[in-house]
Amino acid sequence: MSVLVVGSVALDSIETPFGGVQDVLGGSASYFSLAASLFTDVKIVAVVGDDFPEEYTYLNVFENFDPVIPEDYRDAEYVFLANINPELQLHVLKQVKKPKLVACDTMNYWIEKKPKELREVLKNVNLLIINDAEARELAQEPMIIKAARTILEIGPEILIVKRGEYGALMFSKEGIFWAPSYPLEAVVDPTGAGDTFAGGFLGAVANDDTYGSAGLKKAVIYGSVLASFTVEDFGVKRLTDLQHGEIEARFTAFLKLSRLD
Amino acid sequence: MSVLVVGSVALDSIETPFGGVQDVLGGSASYFSLAASLFTDVKIVAVVGDDFPEEYTYLNVFENFDPVIPEDYRDAEYVFLANINPELQLHVLKQVKKPKLVACDTMNYWIEKKPKELREVLKNVNLLIINDAEARELAQEPMIIKAARTILEIGPEILIVKRGEYGALMFSKEGIFWAPSYPLEAVVDPTGAGDTFAGGFLGAVANDDTYGSAGLKKAVIYGSVLASFTVEDFGVKRLTDLQHGEIEARFTAFLKLSRLD
Repeated sequence: MSVLVVGSVALDSIETPFGGVQDVLGGSASYFSLAASLFTDVKIVAVVGDDFPEEYTYLNVFENFDPVIPEDYRDAEYVFLANINPELQLHVLKQVKKPKLVACDTMNYWIEKKPKELREVLKNVNLLIINDAEARELAQEPMIIKAARTILEIGPEILIVKRGEYGALMFSKEGIFWAPSYPLEAVVDPTGAGDTFAGGFLGAVANDDTYGSAGLKKAVIYGSVLASFTVEDFGVKRLTDLQHGEIEARFTAFLKLSRLD
Repeated sequence: MSVLVVGSVALDSIETPFGGVQDVLGGSASYFSLAASLFTDVKIVAVVGDDFPEEYTYLNVFENFDPVIPEDYRDAEYVFLANINPELQLHVLKQVKKPKLVACDTMNYWIEKKPKELREVLKNVNLLIINDAEARELAQEPMIIKAARTILEIGPEILIVKRGEYGALMFSKEGIFWAPSYPLEAVVDPTGAGDTFAGGFLGAVANDDTYGSAGLKKAVIYGSVLASFTVEDFGVKRLTDLQHGEIEARFTAFLKLSRLD
């Protein structure tokens, strides 16, 4: 089943304690689609940015972005609204037909600047994928369990909270799923880890074409697996040469991390 | 099998955003032994402090502490050296006979003030239980995986890193075990969580009287279970009325958190 992602494609310049790269492929849609494409077909609708630092991209390139979803993209079964202006996310939601599952991302900027529009988005998606700090800010609640309950009351049936090296939590009415992160020796470049997670997750869900409890948990692990590869090198580099065998081996290693026997 | 703990017993006054208590039972040996006693017999050797705030206790009451282990305590099979001066930990180590497993705790203060003595302790224990920040400081290495390897090279065969709401990691030559923490609505009082973890862990190990890989993993979960109860109320209060049924129910809930099916 195919996945549609709406986000950005940009040129990034990245510097970390391990070195740097200039003008490499970046943007939320790039990471997401490279990750998801390892599982299924991906359709991209993206604003193409320039070499502004990624953190400013949404302020610059999205100003005049009016995402028109091509006719034959509108019946995508799985949709990911990357971290863009909630008004644009709503605009996309009006164009897609009957997706089986819509997931979205957001960030502190939109939580603060467009709370009303973001709330409207949350009422119309099945799944929200955000990080720890964003979840606490969105719910205005420091305890993550209470924050999750508040967010699920707003709208989405499922909330995934990414916690970097501490793993990820998935909340739904089925309960809580606690996924480890992969114990890495070094994080060369954390850029794109979140969008890669989303891509791996939604790619796995679309590939299974079922989102029962067990399938979603498996997909959270696949998202974590893909993100763990992305941060091993700069930009999207690690994603572009990734082999299926590597993915499956790390998936197995993930399961082993929290198994008792 | 019996467990010997060497640490402190004190009166604590605690204040948290949820309220406060005055002059309640505290000290590392209190939390440890209440937790461990839910699994096995516990022998305590402790300096008895007064109502100084716990964080200063080691500076005050331990100054003249010369732990003499009673003759019939010296053949304890399982020993826990709570967070005291490494010189005293070494002094205890010389008195115990042939324990099957010795675990110890320490803190930033000793890592900075007594690095040589602490290193000597680490060469003579099987297991170190410390928190995230302490592990990084002890190894002088920010990445926890590398820090763990450095610490295991110093001496202990097993390292447990406590990460509060993010769970716990156990490192050994068998690999890494990733334990979740229990998703609590509120942490009323975090005092004693670490010593409770150690008590639940070592109590479970002593009760099983085996420390194979599966047993140690189970014990990490029991340590986490006990710690999750302790922080639900002030001081040792929650530990004193804890029922075995509650412990087993939460143990099962822990396992469910990270299970795929």
